[in-house]
Amino acid sequence: MSFLDDDLSPLRWDDGALLLLDQRALPTKESWLSLSRYEDVCVAIRELAVRGAPAIGCAAAYGVALGFRQVGHAGLARVHAELAATRPTAVNLFWALQRMRGIEPSFEALLAEARAIQAEDLRACRTLGALGAQLIPDGGILTHCNAGALATGGYGTALGVIRAAVAKGRSIHVFADETRPVLQGARLTAWELSRSGIGVTVITDGMAAHLMARGEIHAVVVGADRIARNGDTANKIGTYSVALAAAAHGLPFIVAAPWSTVDLACPSGASIPIEERAADEVTHHGGRRLVPDGVRVRNPAFDVTPARYITAIVTELGIARPPFVESLALDKEKR
Amino acid sequence: MSFLDDDLSPLRWDDGALLLLDQRALPTKESWLSLSRYEDVCVAIRELAVRGAPAIGCAAAYGVALGFRQVGHAGLARVHAELAATRPTAVNLFWALQRMRGIEPSFEALLAEARAIQAEDLRACRTLGALGAQLIPDGGILTHCNAGALATGGYGTALGVIRAAVAKGRSIHVFADETRPVLQGARLTAWELSRSGIGVTVITDGMAAHLMARGEIHAVVVGADRIARNGDTANKIGTYSVALAAAAHGLPFIVAAPWSTVDLACPSGASIPIEERAADEVTHHGGRRLVPDGVRVRNPAFDVTPARYITAIVTELGIARPPFVESLALDKEKR
Repeated sequence: MSFLDDDLSPLRWDDGALLLLDQRALPTKESWLSLSRYEDVCVAIRELAVRGAPAIGCAAAYGVALGFRQVGHAGLARVHAELAATRPTAVNLFWALQRMRGIEPSFEALLAEARAIQAEDLRACRTLGALGAQLIPDGGILTHCNAGALATGGYGTALGVIRAAVAKGRSIHVFADETRPVLQGARLTAWELSRSGIGVTVITDGMAAHLMARGEIHAVVVGADRIARNGDTANKIGTYSVALAAAAHGLPFIVAAPWSTVDLACPSGASIPIEERAADEVTHHGGRRLVPDGVRVRNPAFDVTPARYITAIVTELGIARPPFVESLALDKEKR
Repeated sequence: MSFLDDDLSPLRWDDGALLLLDQRALPTKESWLSLSRYEDVCVAIRELAVRGAPAIGCAAAYGVALGFRQVGHAGLARVHAELAATRPTAVNLFWALQRMRGIEPSFEALLAEARAIQAEDLRACRTLGALGAQLIPDGGILTHCNAGALATGGYGTALGVIRAAVAKGRSIHVFADETRPVLQGARLTAWELSRSGIGVTVITDGMAAHLMARGEIHAVVVGADRIARNGDTANKIGTYSVALAAAAHGLPFIVAAPWSTVDLACPSGASIPIEERAADEVTHHGGRRLVPDGVRVRNPAFDVTPARYITAIVTELGIARPPFVESLALDKEKR
């Protein structure tokens, strides 16, 4: 464990296969999956071995290269269709597949493009991290879910902002919502920040508003799975609740994401499809049943935070402020 | 399992001992503890075998009778002190002990008073349930934690309101926040409502605001651990977050509690002590570690919902509306 270690990446190409850090096993076990078939990439995305919108985009891009190696030009449409069907909300998946479609297909060219997508995502995270670091005060910074190195090509979006602030010597302590049901905050954000020597305290999702009322939290930074043209932002379930609490306490609520998460074709949050995942993520933990047999549960994996609760949206292209329909359109011109 | 079974009570006196339904084992196992020593009542309260402000008050009252049987008049002050030290937030504990202090001590008299406290609590729940039922619309009703029969002498406060509405033939579907870290919603509210044939869907705490935005929740009803003179209400951690979400969506937010939960000596929420419980409630579930080793956690067991987010406070004395400092004072006159 090195101080401010920020070389963590959840995926890399090695010896003809995609290596994925299996995030289902964290924090208990650090194990890597070696995937040489696109179908295995589909399963890894669907079952959350890899998760986080930008990392899903990277994994899908490598999946296209693997798929081409398996089935060639004739089967490539099916490879794309199966990868696209894995998860509906994170727009980076569709963005990455679209970009892969723009490549004259050969295994080498597709692999090079997948590597480029990951390298660009890492650069984007470092750039937006440095920009976002200007927006957060010293003190307690709350984040929800994991929008870290583990969720991206590396470095992280929300946690990239925190990494950049800490690297500048700023005095930051992170509060991580545990983020039920899958506990990405308790398992992944806590693991990743500890590994980097950044102070972190895990709280249950219901504690955030209380700590705000107590003056222990000074800003909120989260990632995003899809940002609509008007700034409405889909992110992990529970984010909206945090945004309402931040607004009630007059705290900055910052969304940090690469530009590939912005979906200008999507007019507002109402158009973002929300994935409903299997009940057992809620009813069970570690094989142990939490909810009585026969009781219904719901499991929407994301919610939408309306733009009016968002202070700023930070991408590698700049810091967008309300009204986002204008500021995001201006950022687009910088591309 | 009988339809609208509402005879469930978590404690009863039987054959010289206090029988407590061990709520730590629910919903997996329905087992009863038989306690004949006041020290065991202290442990049962501290370790959440019995929980819920009114039920804690009842258990403590029986504990005084048991303690008198053990140590007599000379040791009674110590019995009171140990029972009072079990948990700091629920005022019903101190209210019940105060009431027991008003009895000329004999085992029979103290036991009779404990039984009276429980019987009155049950009556209060039925009365406030009927009053509160007028305040909730048909549709989706959200509750947080367990403020049901299991948390009271019987019938329940928040769930008493729901029981009364359902008994009148109203069309109600309950959404139960799972209520991390101890999962009283997933384990207890779901179990209790299923047993009574009332439709219930468990959600994680971060889902409530999303379901409000989707129009699936039409009101919120919660219990209370202490209500200050100005209406500020301490309740299970996460309640404040739910109140903020209800306010943002213009939904009624109803607090239901027996009058014994109202602490007119407490001017506002700032004076309510908030219990911080052991870290392992957050870090572990079922013996399995959720959070990486060495990572800090916080575990405040309660939060305070400011009076301005509360639509009405229902007790057996009536429906108090803002400004609560006046309406609660008026209700007090009815005693």
